[in-house]
Amino acid sequence: MTNLNLKKYIIGANTPIETTTGFTPRVYFNNSATTLILKPAMEKFCSLLPIYTYIDVPSSNSEIITKMYEETRDVILELVGGDPNKDIAIFTKNSTEAINVLAQVFFQDAPDQVVLSTTMEHLANYLPYKTRMQTELIKIGENGNIDLDDYVSKLEKYQGRVKLVTVTGASNVTGVIPPYYTMARLAHKYGAKIFVDVVQVIQHFPFTMKPHDCEAHIDFVAFSAHKAYSGLDGGALVGPFNFLKKYLPLDFGSGITKFIDSSQIIYSDPPKKYEAGYPDVLGIITMRAALQFLMKVGLANIDKYERRLYKYLLCKMKEVPSIKIYDDNSPFVGIPYISFNLKGISFKTVASKLGLDYGIEIGKGTVGADLYVQFLLGLSNEEAFEAYNSGKGYGVVRISLGMYNTFEEIDYFICALKKIACGYPPK
Amino acid sequence: MTNLNLKKYIIGANTPIETTTGFTPRVYFNNSATTLILKPAMEKFCSLLPIYTYIDVPSSNSEIITKMYEETRDVILELVGGDPNKDIAIFTKNSTEAINVLAQVFFQDAPDQVVLSTTMEHLANYLPYKTRMQTELIKIGENGNIDLDDYVSKLEKYQGRVKLVTVTGASNVTGVIPPYYTMARLAHKYGAKIFVDVVQVIQHFPFTMKPHDCEAHIDFVAFSAHKAYSGLDGGALVGPFNFLKKYLPLDFGSGITKFIDSSQIIYSDPPKKYEAGYPDVLGIITMRAALQFLMKVGLANIDKYERRLYKYLLCKMKEVPSIKIYDDNSPFVGIPYISFNLKGISFKTVASKLGLDYGIEIGKGTVGADLYVQFLLGLSNEEAFEAYNSGKGYGVVRISLGMYNTFEEIDYFICALKKIACGYPPK
Repeated sequence: MTNLNLKKYIIGANTPIETTTGFTPRVYFNNSATTLILKPAMEKFCSLLPIYTYIDVPSSNSEIITKMYEETRDVILELVGGDPNKDIAIFTKNSTEAINVLAQVFFQDAPDQVVLSTTMEHLANYLPYKTRMQTELIKIGENGNIDLDDYVSKLEKYQGRVKLVTVTGASNVTGVIPPYYTMARLAHKYGAKIFVDVVQVIQHFPFTMKPHDCEAHIDFVAFSAHKAYSGLDGGALVGPFNFLKKYLPLDFGSGITKFIDSSQIIYSDPPKKYEAGYPDVLGIITMRAALQFLMKVGLANIDKYERRLYKYLLCKMKEVPSIKIYDDNSPFVGIPYISFNLKGISFKTVASKLGLDYGIEIGKGTVGADLYVQFLLGLSNEEAFEAYNSGKGYGVVRISLGMYNTFEEIDYFICALKKIACGYPPK
Repeated sequence: MTNLNLKKYIIGANTPIETTTGFTPRVYFNNSATTLILKPAMEKFCSLLPIYTYIDVPSSNSEIITKMYEETRDVILELVGGDPNKDIAIFTKNSTEAINVLAQVFFQDAPDQVVLSTTMEHLANYLPYKTRMQTELIKIGENGNIDLDDYVSKLEKYQGRVKLVTVTGASNVTGVIPPYYTMARLAHKYGAKIFVDVVQVIQHFPFTMKPHDCEAHIDFVAFSAHKAYSGLDGGALVGPFNFLKKYLPLDFGSGITKFIDSSQIIYSDPPKKYEAGYPDVLGIITMRAALQFLMKVGLANIDKYERRLYKYLLCKMKEVPSIKIYDDNSPFVGIPYISFNLKGISFKTVASKLGLDYGIEIGKGTVGADLYVQFLLGLSNEEAFEAYNSGKGYGVVRISLGMYNTFEEIDYFICALKKIACGYPPK
């Protein structure tokens, strides 16, 4: 029950929050949507303000800013185990933009290819492909994780046409970790590349793309800074330079050309080719500070602590009357997220009571992973559409913890949830 | 010579900056690239941190954040004179992204259309069309502004195929203001819509899209927050709801659907359809605070003051030996930007000396408007390519003032520039 004691580094973790019965200390359990903000990251942000300027301008301020901005690429490669000689980090505003860039790149490579995605994905790791190319979803098996038999059968079925396999590094709904290294080996065996969406990974546990000559090597990853305690725009797409240099970006504008006149365009090399327009120096350098803090604490330490929090939370939640926890017996959960419903009470009501009566901020609904939530709830397309169309909706209530959350907060939450389950008033 | 006295509201306007001869108060004359940051905007930013959370989550914090975030759309419409009953403000990370969204929308409307752009544009208002559709450039006339005869002849030549005319609201190189209302009347006469890039406008002078039933109505505008004193990602594309609802976005992801299952996608209405992924609450609400500050000071007051600064600057610069100022006799300059060269000295050398010897931060090179700079320098494609290929490069030195700059700073700059022109050492 010992806390990792990181709350002191977080802004707003204890801010009093207004509820229907007065002010109470805030409990923030919606870290999957966005984490709260690290003080050290904001201190870096504030230290930049007096010398804030554009990059690559002749001035000592610009030299400082440009260096910190560009070095963020190295920090990112270090974080995800990219190869500085082969991989590059392209700055994006967030992971959604990064994945759209990736989808656009693969679309250029072969518009008639088949992308293999999974039923477990957030829409950000599905719609960018689905709207551009034929996209097939790998099923979820009886064990609640990716069905590897179905995966292999789809690799076989579309052999020669599968250029990209795309899978989350951890579900934003249930915290389940897909077997992405095994999937990487299989993808490579069938001549495909693999993208792992590490937006729910890099803030929770150590991750590596592994060396390029390893069969389980991960070809591309992407993440968002705001889910890693920076609070600002900022993110990255990481992948091999030699592949990315062949394609055009999604956004066109200044900074992506070496030379242009009325008769020709010579594009810059990546990453610059993919970074049209304003270089978000404050967002990127603040992201760097946040990532460096995580590495300093140690992702292994964060992982260890969050797994203890998760076990405690799960154990306590199982005691709540009428609760249905999704994937509560899964051995694959690796990040501290739990989605649930209380039988007989709408997810909207439970979420509202937690938030407005108790000051406990959580996620609710489909949390961006509509197809997976439909699967978890056992809804057919018709049932899901009927729920949507009637205005009733469908969904889950999601608890997502971060490295600074505490056992005491879990106790407070469990107490609140029991009251809600039993129909008791908040006070 | 009385200053508007806004420096006290700006962070880092007087920060000592290191030069080759020691520390000196900073002079920031690169406001076209990015402005410095408003204290009131940063105060709003800091006030949000303790209650920072996601939008549309059930909690009192989220209600506050969501309200401020959504109300920013109204502030934007007020700023640009949009019609709240007909226009919407789509949040983007910056104007480059906004224009790429616009180009993608028009591409969907008719891939074989002809876009009319101008030789005066920043690449952000040229490449997004050029890379998707046939794009023709309206010439610059002998008066240094858009050649309206050439414009009409192109409207005639491509009659029926021109859906979009796109023009800057003010040149980022020379500060020249194109006759965009006249261009709007002509565009509408020929059945086209008009986009005005107001990224160099909204921080300098009052602008209005004019009512929809006015012949000179501007159909679409876009801008970036970081050029309007916010320092962060944030921007907007403003245009008519009824038009924008017909098309698909550039980025796909969470938040853009009302309903989705494995067989269908029902998209949200704009603006949400165009805003996949993380809602950048801090960037957007900080932008709102910056825009509100500008409106409170009054864009007319800012305009009046900056025109005085410009006149003074121009008059003093004309005294500098061997100077070539681009468009120094233009009656069309409306924002305080001046681009120049010193005969016999490379633009790179002048820029480096100003920045590194005197702590005066300025823009240099093509400043993102490559075709216009080639025109101003009188370079043929071959000459421009030769300059690029030799490594020598080509370009201008650009001074771009903001509302907080002062006459004293101009004096300091003129003194430095004269020394550079005469080959004197900095001290």
